[in-house]
Amino acid sequence: MENIKIVGFGGSLRKESYNKYLLKEAKRLMPENVHFEILSIDDFPMYNQDLENNYPENVRAFKDKIKNSDGILIATPEYNYSIPGFLKNAIDLASRPYGDNSFDGKPVAMVSASIGMIGGARAQYQLRQSFVFLNMLPVNKPEVFVTFAQNKFDENGNLKDDMTKKFMKELLNNLVNLSIQLKK
Amino acid sequence: MENIKIVGFGGSLRKESYNKYLLKEAKRLMPENVHFEILSIDDFPMYNQDLENNYPENVRAFKDKIKNSDGILIATPEYNYSIPGFLKNAIDLASRPYGDNSFDGKPVAMVSASIGMIGGARAQYQLRQSFVFLNMLPVNKPEVFVTFAQNKFDENGNLKDDMTKKFMKELLNNLVNLSIQLKK
Amino acid sequence: MENIKIVGFGGSLRKESYNKYLLKEAKRLMPENVHFEILSIDDFPMYNQDLENNYPENVRAFKDKIKNSDGILIATPEYNYSIPGFLKNAIDLASRPYGDNSFDGKPVAMVSASIGMIGGARAQYQLRQSFVFLNMLPVNKPEVFVTFAQNKFDENGNLKDDMTKKFMKELLNNLVNLSIQLKK
Amino acid sequence: MENIKIVGFGGSLRKESYNKYLLKEAKRLMPENVHFEILSIDDFPMYNQDLENNYPENVRAFKDKIKNSDGILIATPEYNYSIPGFLKNAIDLASRPYGDNSFDGKPVAMVSASIGMIGGARAQYQLRQSFVFLNMLPVNKPEVFVTFAQNKFDENGNLKDDMTKKFMKELLNNLVNLSIQLKK
Repeated sequence: MENIKIVGFGGSLRKESYNKYLLKEAKRLMPENVHFEILSIDDFPMYNQDLENNYPENVRAFKDKIKNSDGILIATPEYNYSIPGFLKNAIDLASRPYGDNSFDGKPVAMVSASIGMIGGARAQYQLRQSFVFLNMLPVNKPEVFVTFAQNKFDENGNLKDDMTKKFMKELLNNLVNLSIQLKK
Repeated sequence: MENIKIVGFGGSLRKESYNKYLLKEAKRLMPENVHFEILSIDDFPMYNQDLENNYPENVRAFKDKIKNSDGILIATPEYNYSIPGFLKNAIDLASRPYGDNSFDGKPVAMVSASIGMIGGARAQYQLRQSFVFLNMLPVNKPEVFVTFAQNKFDENGNLKDDMTKKFMKELLNNLVNLSIQLKK
Repeated sequence: MENIKIVGFGGSLRKESYNKYLLKEAKRLMPENVHFEILSIDDFPMYNQDLENNYPENVRAFKDKIKNSDGILIATPEYNYSIPGFLKNAIDLASRPYGDNSFDGKPVAMVSASIGMIGGARAQYQLRQSFVFLNMLPVNKPEVFVTFAQNKFDENGNLKDDMTKKFMKELLNNLVNLSIQLKK
Repeated sequence: MENIKIVGFGGSLRKESYNKYLLKEAKRLMPENVHFEILSIDDFPMYNQDLENNYPENVRAFKDKIKNSDGILIATPEYNYSIPGFLKNAIDLASRPYGDNSFDGKPVAMVSASIGMIGGARAQYQLRQSFVFLNMLPVNKPEVFVTFAQNKFDENGNLKDDMTKKFMKELLNNLVNLSIQLKK
């Protein structure tokens, strides 16, 4: 796996976030020898162009980790049929200042969990539109939408649904393979 | 105009935001006798489900103003081909807790300004998808995308482009008419 | 119901189309005294601007029925995460020639059936974007996505799933109510 | 350029289609030694699942050419804020029968011309959603939206706008480079 570095972020901000559980699950399911790090976006300020040359330390570190990664994993809930504001804000922060888009050229995969039936699909399709501008390369398949999430994790927040694990594993493999291909 | 109340919010957070200028312009162009108030979203916390029964005073006031309005105007920039995080966050806050969606049944119109060529269209189409979930009734026409905004405002932030003013006026009329129709 | 006229179209072109079944089911579930007619789009030519002043009789009749209706029901499958070509073509035909958009100002509701898990959602959201241009007024709720359709119809093509019937009935009521409201 | 084969299709069906002009222009602007062929979709039947094992000769030839290509160029107009029906229909035909998606794994680029101000952007973003299902790899940049097309072609249908030519050339280069990279 040649020292492939993947970083992941997302989740909702609440403590028992299913999407944060997915990030942790990704750590368990990631192909061996891949370095995977979960990045916190919990204490970020709102993006403000007037301040974009004065990012606080945590935002600068976030941008650096993304820039130095070979691939990105985003765990996105769906709020109001779209990307949560706090998650879009983290992306806005890392995409700027202009001329300094940390995501440029990076492969990316998405996972979503929700208690409903569609499970984040609408948020993921909107994110894909942002990836065009950000010049990211999204993995097409498999799409991981964990529906009825309340039934699919155990009391420790570990995925207990084998089908979902299988899909996540396949997605992570595809992300890592694309990352290797693009690194060459 | 029968005591119609419209509230507006949006803009980017920077000081010289063209989208905030559009909100102020809307105040000047609004049909007579309509009560129009611009609501600040600048100091909102990130939405967090664990805290949604403990919103601070400014968020509670925002939710009340929206709930008591007859129609909504949103001025949205476009960040990364989508809605800015801080603006989506304000919408997320006002849409929750569940069972308490302040936007329910409200007519809504959008305006956007940008220094580019498409001028916010992509952000507006994504917002329209959120309106389905929020059960809002968006005005279809005219779509107001102020392109090359740097050329269309004077040094005081007033719109100087007559064509843009005409479209905004028409949009505000349509929003007010829809608000009257739905109030009956 | 004051002589409300609703027209429906869509389906896929194959004989045993679940989406055509939904149109027939709508006839059974429609509020009493509403006049509902299913319009065929099966033998339409491809839209070609050079020929738009020479539409054949079946397209002209389709346009007339739509123009004279108070509301529209579209049953859309999803092909390749989007609207089927033949269905979009029927919409393109009825929207032209310019200045003669038969859909202008009409309320519209959508239903979808599919053998998969998301059941037409992606096609419906894309159609909603067309409704902005066509100046149509889509019903927001409930969204009717009939998933795993192979299990929800009996051998005569009648819906046997009570939950789905309930949602369809609610949607049709909302469409008729909006049609009455806009007719005034 | 190692025998790279690109195929292009699209346009509107009318004779003087700006989008067909763009396909012809692509022939002139394509990197040297690349084999580029424009495929006709003008006389295709509507996709019908009952007939998908009996495609006529022209559809079978279209599917073969796509399958044997290294990359795809689609010239799409925008009808009603979305993909034209006849163009979506060609994509639907080539994507089926199931298990025989001719587009699988292919890189793709898009160009659009229109007489309006947004010039096809909305159609292209909807097409990108189809590419996820079709497992295609869209080029991100530059996005080619030829606005006010009536002013940008000469009387022979040749592009006369240098900026547009430059962007198209860059897009075609990126498509060819991605095709080479994926062929390896």
